[in-house]
Amino acid sequence: MSIVYADNNATTQVAPEVVQAMTPYLGEQYFNPSSMYEAARVPAKAIADARATIARLLGGVRPDEILFTSCATESNNAAIFGAVKANPARRHVITTAVEHPAVLNVCKELERDGLEVTFLPVDARGRLDVADLVRALRRETLLVSIMHANNETGVIFPIAEVARITKETDPGIVFHTDATQTVGKLRIDLTGELAHVDMLSFSGHKLHAPKGVGALFIRRGTRCRPFLVGGHQESGRRGGTENVPYIVGLARALELAAETHESTEERIHHLRGHLEAELTARIPLLQVNGGEAERLSNTLNISCHFIEGEGILYQLSEHGICASSGSACTSGSLEPSHVLSAMKVPFTAAHGSVRFSFSRYNTEADVDRILAVFPGIVSNLRRLSPYWDVQRGCPRPEAEHMLRSPDGD
Amino acid sequence: MSIVYADNNATTQVAPEVVQAMTPYLGEQYFNPSSMYEAARVPAKAIADARATIARLLGGVRPDEILFTSCATESNNAAIFGAVKANPARRHVITTAVEHPAVLNVCKELERDGLEVTFLPVDARGRLDVADLVRALRRETLLVSIMHANNETGVIFPIAEVARITKETDPGIVFHTDATQTVGKLRIDLTGELAHVDMLSFSGHKLHAPKGVGALFIRRGTRCRPFLVGGHQESGRRGGTENVPYIVGLARALELAAETHESTEERIHHLRGHLEAELTARIPLLQVNGGEAERLSNTLNISCHFIEGEGILYQLSEHGICASSGSACTSGSLEPSHVLSAMKVPFTAAHGSVRFSFSRYNTEADVDRILAVFPGIVSNLRRLSPYWDVQRGCPRPEAEHMLRSPDGD
Repeated sequence: MSIVYADNNATTQVAPEVVQAMTPYLGEQYFNPSSMYEAARVPAKAIADARATIARLLGGVRPDEILFTSCATESNNAAIFGAVKANPARRHVITTAVEHPAVLNVCKELERDGLEVTFLPVDARGRLDVADLVRALRRETLLVSIMHANNETGVIFPIAEVARITKETDPGIVFHTDATQTVGKLRIDLTGELAHVDMLSFSGHKLHAPKGVGALFIRRGTRCRPFLVGGHQESGRRGGTENVPYIVGLARALELAAETHESTEERIHHLRGHLEAELTARIPLLQVNGGEAERLSNTLNISCHFIEGEGILYQLSEHGICASSGSACTSGSLEPSHVLSAMKVPFTAAHGSVRFSFSRYNTEADVDRILAVFPGIVSNLRRLSPYWDVQRGCPRPEAEHMLRSPDGD
Repeated sequence: MSIVYADNNATTQVAPEVVQAMTPYLGEQYFNPSSMYEAARVPAKAIADARATIARLLGGVRPDEILFTSCATESNNAAIFGAVKANPARRHVITTAVEHPAVLNVCKELERDGLEVTFLPVDARGRLDVADLVRALRRETLLVSIMHANNETGVIFPIAEVARITKETDPGIVFHTDATQTVGKLRIDLTGELAHVDMLSFSGHKLHAPKGVGALFIRRGTRCRPFLVGGHQESGRRGGTENVPYIVGLARALELAAETHESTEERIHHLRGHLEAELTARIPLLQVNGGEAERLSNTLNISCHFIEGEGILYQLSEHGICASSGSACTSGSLEPSHVLSAMKVPFTAAHGSVRFSFSRYNTEADVDRILAVFPGIVSNLRRLSPYWDVQRGCPRPEAEHMLRSPDGD
């Protein structure tokens, strides 16, 4: 049975062109780029070229504003802990309640370290209220970290606007965005629309480069101390021998994303729209989470009231279909998604959420395969669900209390 | 011209068997190991198997005592910062003056954060005096971090003994060792000889796995807070989607090192001995740094008085020979090696140091190629050196002051 892979917000297939670009550096070009001999110039130049390519594709920033890391989690840690360390006079950080754990848990760590953190709420559609940010900004604010698009719902935040407001309020505040879900999907212009963004994180494995490489844009002049402390690599800002193959792969993946952007964007938008329309039409009591906000074209997060997302995923998997409930980073957890909780998605729906996320490798046939089985899976599970009976007016006493969320709303 | 690669303490060629083991995970087995669907079980099992293999090869420790990281620098940062964060009541750290920058600069960062750090000296042979450690231990000591073998000289420290002394003095002290230069070269037995070691760092690219993967052994019960904060990966101890291909490669590389250990050790010991004997016989005023201490079999660090190591390396490179002066991590710097400085190698010799480091891929023919050109390079450079004239009694006034080191010794 062939696989329908619709979990591209969790990770992506490595593009064959990326593997090809990396191959020499897993082979005979193994030299340490920091070494002084002639042979080391090839990997050293490969890194310089990759840095220049990425700088160009992010809007023509300076190559030395690009720092290579091992993943977006490291980029986020480096940005946030680095900014905090460099600005000890200020002790307040602003983020949102719907960040990826790599930002959310870092901010919780800051709270343990004695800093104050404001977690901005979102509305039921998953949107930020810019007025909340304005109210939260104060003289002690050192950092604002707001994601570009949400991994679970695909909802896009107005980063250009919130970065501008932040920097116009106080140029001394560092503005960081976790753009892991947008680099490779949206055009990123750090000298144009996003000129007020000081730091931007992303990783390779969301855009068809391997897992284990990321980058952090740090605008020149941004106060940020090194996170991975060690040798002189990355101009003294990140120790550790450079992962030459993956760095080359990251640049190649970003090039491919840029080259295929327009055709992919339109095609994926159509695939997602088709899937969404058909599922909504065929399945009663189905809600599209974030569906009324500006969203990434590749992401569809739906909630099927009164059943468990895990049950759906399990049956999809038996049909060779890979999708996700919440983010892969918290899968295995029984807690409802923190993103859907922040959106006040009812308990009975939050637990039944499923995320489909596409990439340029998805086809109309993939959507057809999903449509062929998904409505049947939902109706079968509902038939077995005590919640469903309750909802339909045939209460089972032992199930009724479960319609209330543990948080009481 | 074929390359003679004798810089294996800087980085190593990726073994073809390692590339082969990784290949499926750069291809069709690209799934996120945290995902719930059937397809993700293959990469999840690959990581579990790699962890079990490494645990077995480090002396039969528990697989959950192995944490995967992006490099030894990250492992060292995670060990040291993690231990410091977990033990806030203690504010004193002990390390040595000859650590790799990934430990040395982390310890200097701790000093900036207000901790006190003792940097243990070494003698002229590069050896630690255990009595110095005993004197340095005190009630406030939270961590002792001492490398297993030095990257520049190959000198091996008596880690079993110093770990035992540390833990017997105060079981509350965390003992960490940077074993980047020994894992894959020496047998590591963390349940036997090294049973008092709490944490041990190493990386893949020193043992024929790629650059960009490392590991940290954390003995169960060791108090250590996570360094890379994020998702639930690595049992909540290190966020970031797992670099499946490289993790698989790391385990395969360690297996290969174990399988070839005995034959490699003997052969390399012979290669190094032959090179050392011939160079010592043919070149006057040549000293072997660390030559009188217990040393890794693969490393030869020599100083040619009165000439610059960089000049030697440049000419070796023209003959296709890759070697190093000091560690690659500080190459490009004009400062003399901090390791040779700590050994009080005279200024006129420290600047003329060259390191050859072998791996199982080196041959007798490589040594012959080095021997064919090295003595000639040295005598040519000395002929051009003002220092050499001074030493031979033909002073050039403008050069004489340069025989004194800038530090005055």
